[in-house]
Amino acid sequence: MLNNQGVEILCIGSELLLGNILNSNAKWLAEELAILGLPHYLQTVVGDNSNRLEKVLLDASKRSRVLITTGGLGPTPDDLTTETIASTFKTELIEDKSIIQDIKGKFHPKFKLPKNNIKQARLPKGAKSVPNTSGTAPGIIWTPIDSFTVISLPGVPSEMKLMWEQTIKSWLCKEFPFREIITSKTLKFTGISESALAEKIPEILTNKNPTVAPYASLGEVKLRITAQSKTTNEGNNLIKPMEDKLKEIFGLNFFSNDNQSLASIIIDLLRKRGETLSVAESCTGGSLAATITTVPGSSDVFLGGVVAYNNEIKQNILGVPLELIEKYGAVSGPVAKSMALGMRKTFRTDWSIAITGIAGPKGGNKTKPIGRVEFYIKGANSNESIQENFGSHRSRVDIQKLSVVRALDRLRLFLLK
Amino acid sequence: MLNNQGVEILCIGSELLLGNILNSNAKWLAEELAILGLPHYLQTVVGDNSNRLEKVLLDASKRSRVLITTGGLGPTPDDLTTETIASTFKTELIEDKSIIQDIKGKFHPKFKLPKNNIKQARLPKGAKSVPNTSGTAPGIIWTPIDSFTVISLPGVPSEMKLMWEQTIKSWLCKEFPFREIITSKTLKFTGISESALAEKIPEILTNKNPTVAPYASLGEVKLRITAQSKTTNEGNNLIKPMEDKLKEIFGLNFFSNDNQSLASIIIDLLRKRGETLSVAESCTGGSLAATITTVPGSSDVFLGGVVAYNNEIKQNILGVPLELIEKYGAVSGPVAKSMALGMRKTFRTDWSIAITGIAGPKGGNKTKPIGRVEFYIKGANSNESIQENFGSHRSRVDIQKLSVVRALDRLRLFLLK
Repeated sequence: MLNNQGVEILCIGSELLLGNILNSNAKWLAEELAILGLPHYLQTVVGDNSNRLEKVLLDASKRSRVLITTGGLGPTPDDLTTETIASTFKTELIEDKSIIQDIKGKFHPKFKLPKNNIKQARLPKGAKSVPNTSGTAPGIIWTPIDSFTVISLPGVPSEMKLMWEQTIKSWLCKEFPFREIITSKTLKFTGISESALAEKIPEILTNKNPTVAPYASLGEVKLRITAQSKTTNEGNNLIKPMEDKLKEIFGLNFFSNDNQSLASIIIDLLRKRGETLSVAESCTGGSLAATITTVPGSSDVFLGGVVAYNNEIKQNILGVPLELIEKYGAVSGPVAKSMALGMRKTFRTDWSIAITGIAGPKGGNKTKPIGRVEFYIKGANSNESIQENFGSHRSRVDIQKLSVVRALDRLRLFLLK
Repeated sequence: MLNNQGVEILCIGSELLLGNILNSNAKWLAEELAILGLPHYLQTVVGDNSNRLEKVLLDASKRSRVLITTGGLGPTPDDLTTETIASTFKTELIEDKSIIQDIKGKFHPKFKLPKNNIKQARLPKGAKSVPNTSGTAPGIIWTPIDSFTVISLPGVPSEMKLMWEQTIKSWLCKEFPFREIITSKTLKFTGISESALAEKIPEILTNKNPTVAPYASLGEVKLRITAQSKTTNEGNNLIKPMEDKLKEIFGLNFFSNDNQSLASIIIDLLRKRGETLSVAESCTGGSLAATITTVPGSSDVFLGGVVAYNNEIKQNILGVPLELIEKYGAVSGPVAKSMALGMRKTFRTDWSIAITGIAGPKGGNKTKPIGRVEFYIKGANSNESIQENFGSHRSRVDIQKLSVVRALDRLRLFLLK
């Protein structure tokens, strides 16, 4: 059963059902509810259609304590939220003169108020209006039946957010005084798959408070630790031992506990050591350099790169001997090594990384399939040759992205040694 | 009442209820359903909780013909979709050996299949599995009760989209043969802002059939032409004159009428001319080369690039005279020109592009603000020097991306002359 103490979100608008826009309102409201520690179990999207809207309103009134709606409060005929909420709970609409005054004040004195805007001043009998200081549509807080309140906000994100801050947030805090606070922290891992990671911590993944949940993206796995508690302090005290435990279990697979990326971590590590980096790329085609240079301040340590998409460039710029390419092929350990050495010499950097591989969709064969990538990392006193097979089922762009993650991660491991 | 002939979308994942991520899957699927002309009236989001998921599944089975779910098919214990669907409709799970073989084939032969992945091979009895060619989790098409089918897809967007294209789309077209057909075509424009574009065509934007709607993204505006008709042919006949009209109005601002990117268009144009390209990048840090090399077959015409993030590299590799840098500064027209000329000579290509600019967040001043970018394009018999001011209010990454779009677009205009 759905908990009837929960807060539900309902976004109203045919443009959402047509896929014209992303539902950023639902994400924003959900995040705010999580921060307030309010129970939120369900989100619904429905179009500008009063029959279907009525059905959803009735369902919500049976399973939730509060329903927050966005959208459908505008002045045009397809904006049906207010009148449908009223008719669903068999209540008449009453014109609120103070709202008309408020809307009038928002237009130029000479401007004649369009009839459409007068519609926005009609609220269900008994409803409280929510001031909208940045637009014309007021919101509504209304308790049509026992233990069920509808909060209606406009769909325009800036108006919705302002009304949330000015009115709704404090209303909810008063209405849910005994809620628990949700505190959470995300740890980021690389060099390990989601399933391999999960297999190492089956008990932790079923822990109750804090909970630990994995999320995977390309080349990276996140573990989100979430605690419920009376105070933020208590929440942090629940999270800390779990965080330490996970870091201990996964060692160097853990790379960041905040919003830092692999690239920004490497730049920080190099900056601390006063060392510089250059990169020689073939199959990644510039995306390793591009990933590094998205980080502000990367120019402190990153001197540049060469995209050698062609064997002649590998020879002329990086000094890779033709014999090496002919003997081992452009995608080979020896060529990667020669590229890295040439790069480091030409750009006179402390470190260099070289990548050469087969990103597809063409160019693979049995001995060198699509997804085969050769890396070489060269420092003053250390070097490493790495071969990866990312799998020929992967797309060109995924192989390029995985190669970038792997290259950055291996350099990170070097710098941490 | 909700029409029980409709297609409903259910996205499963606590990260959506916590507001951690935008629900881009719902938007994408909704857009696809609209293109297919399928009735879509409701979207729901629920967390990784089997009781609440069961309740939503039962509700959906009463009001819709097809329910498409995304998420919760992964290998970890919080992925509950398959087992909850089965238990909701009181059906046992059966291990499908062919899926285990398929998953095994996706790992390196020496790799031991984690137990968690075996879970992904268990499907409700009677369900059809949907192949996943880019990941391990298969999807499901299952009709547990009369007139109600559940289609379950993974939450990873790239996997979901591929499975949609390969299997789900044709299944839906067979299942809903008599729908009114929606035909649409997207035209892509660059070098013009959304509002400037909209201002030129106020009447077209209120046209009824076909409709024309603008969507803007960084450096690009799309116009989507959508027709409703009984047949695809009829739809195309409605779209064609509108397409011609828009192309005539916007001339060379129009660059593509399908899924081609600026980079793929340039590669095609160069390939036809039998010409080659190299790039010298400073502020874009490799992202111009990276954008070009995401296109399969780009190696036919793109020989490579130099990321000269440092003045010494500009001198040593590209041969930019130190005096030029000292006199005009690294971000200047003369330095951009010298970089392009040096690049073209060193890499021996027909064309070269050079970019140098201030991407921020530091490094700007009154005469050279953040967002100032200098470009130089050099061909055998032509060249162009371009200065842009993208605005110092913009983020580093946005300035980098806009620079890439502008460089590609100016080369396109050259190649079309």
